[in-house]
Amino acid sequence: MSREVYVNGDYKNFKEAEVHVEDRGYQFADGVYEVFAILNSKIVDYEGHIKRLYRSLKELRITSPIQKKSYKFHINEIIKRNIIKDGLIYLQITRGVASRDFKFPKNSKSSIVIIGKNIPSNYYRNSFNKGIKVKTTKDLRWKRVDIKSLNLLPPVLAKQNAVDNGFEEAWLLDEDDYITEGSSSNAWIVKNKTVITRPVSNSILNGITRSTLIKSLKKIGYKFSERKFNLNDIKDADEAFITSATQFVMPVIAINNMRIGNGHVGEFAKLFKEIYFKSINLS
Amino acid sequence: MSREVYVNGDYKNFKEAEVHVEDRGYQFADGVYEVFAILNSKIVDYEGHIKRLYRSLKELRITSPIQKKSYKFHINEIIKRNIIKDGLIYLQITRGVASRDFKFPKNSKSSIVIIGKNIPSNYYRNSFNKGIKVKTTKDLRWKRVDIKSLNLLPPVLAKQNAVDNGFEEAWLLDEDDYITEGSSSNAWIVKNKTVITRPVSNSILNGITRSTLIKSLKKIGYKFSERKFNLNDIKDADEAFITSATQFVMPVIAINNMRIGNGHVGEFAKLFKEIYFKSINLS
Repeated sequence: MSREVYVNGDYKNFKEAEVHVEDRGYQFADGVYEVFAILNSKIVDYEGHIKRLYRSLKELRITSPIQKKSYKFHINEIIKRNIIKDGLIYLQITRGVASRDFKFPKNSKSSIVIIGKNIPSNYYRNSFNKGIKVKTTKDLRWKRVDIKSLNLLPPVLAKQNAVDNGFEEAWLLDEDDYITEGSSSNAWIVKNKTVITRPVSNSILNGITRSTLIKSLKKIGYKFSERKFNLNDIKDADEAFITSATQFVMPVIAINNMRIGNGHVGEFAKLFKEIYFKSINLS
Repeated sequence: MSREVYVNGDYKNFKEAEVHVEDRGYQFADGVYEVFAILNSKIVDYEGHIKRLYRSLKELRITSPIQKKSYKFHINEIIKRNIIKDGLIYLQITRGVASRDFKFPKNSKSSIVIIGKNIPSNYYRNSFNKGIKVKTTKDLRWKRVDIKSLNLLPPVLAKQNAVDNGFEEAWLLDEDDYITEGSSSNAWIVKNKTVITRPVSNSILNGITRSTLIKSLKKIGYKFSERKFNLNDIKDADEAFITSATQFVMPVIAINNMRIGNGHVGEFAKLFKEIYFKSINLS
């Protein structure tokens, strides 16, 4: 079987899946994206991701290249054609192809790419059981990271800085040294049995996994506080973890050279993982 | 004649000039670029641009896809194949194609694209004689704009905000409301016969045209001050102008609803344009 990618109306062989060099995604990062987790060939939290996609498009005044109802069809087609059981769908939309000029082109047609990827079913479980180590680094990103745009060079550099130093993820520090979020995840701690994560603003991405988990925690009656936290708060935290569309709930066992709790995967992370998987919406 | 573009080792017909959907330039803005002005089929300030290109590559740890001496050959080939007399060369390098992951791929090969564009010879003169109007807007960009990267969504939005309101360029305001630079140009004012522009830091791009002009002004003995300036400074400025690789020296006749000087193209701008064109390096 050869992989297939959806590119601007066609299903292309992966190797031949190309876009024009003057696509504004390539020259200006002028576009948006979503990542959908796939479990058992079903899409996780489809509605939440599509709603956020349309918000991102609206913020950047990019027109959807296809009808709203067609997204599900093409995503399912990519799942089917690539025989994805567990994995992810990466969907990207840009302002389209136009002679290079910073201002918006008058008549460009938005571009769309949908890529599917298989991930071994035991990958998440194995990662969860080990947990991850996180390194803090300055948040150098632009001031509208609430838009899920392609303007991703700063988180790329943050992640690489973490990896270079033997860590799996970066947590980004704002100008007052509070943690905003991870390079590609939301950041959480548990302290005095209270679950803490930074409130939504222009400084973080409103994670779909984050929202789903918050809803479930509130329903069950967990003590939950949406507030900023810093390394001092982390010092005596019981646990820490991240959430993202493809990492779901992932325990953090150390931050910089500081162990969290006893330095092993904690009970809250295990519980919240269960709670999350019970509450996800598959479609 | 059909346009030709250099893409990863081949000269391609413009319409067929494509890159893979998993090029990191397309998914992460993980790349750098340069724009060279072409005058009389010669490259303006070639050495300055190549030096800055290599600095950008080094900052992002991207390997040059071709030997340093080959850049000039390919640029000249694009000039020749597209019969460019006056115009520009857009050159872009990315970290290459790899399965999507924030961290750097281990074995990707950098991608390179070189595009040429003709610009009518009277275009600059006509623009200069009219001058441009500038609108200020918040600088939302990331904190390393000294790297000429593809992370360009914020200046795209700034430029469009200016255009939407009937202006030709945006000047960006830092957190203390000082002007950093234009969305794709450096910002200057002349006040009490002193030429003022913001000093080089991580907050502005070290413009090649900027450097060339500063060198010439110093040589001639103009009073020159590298310092921050704000709207208050502009209020009683004699003149204002921008510099960029393709706009050279371009007079600013109004900022927001404020006329600069008498609201017409000023004598300093005319003089500095002459001085600039006398000192440029063609090769």
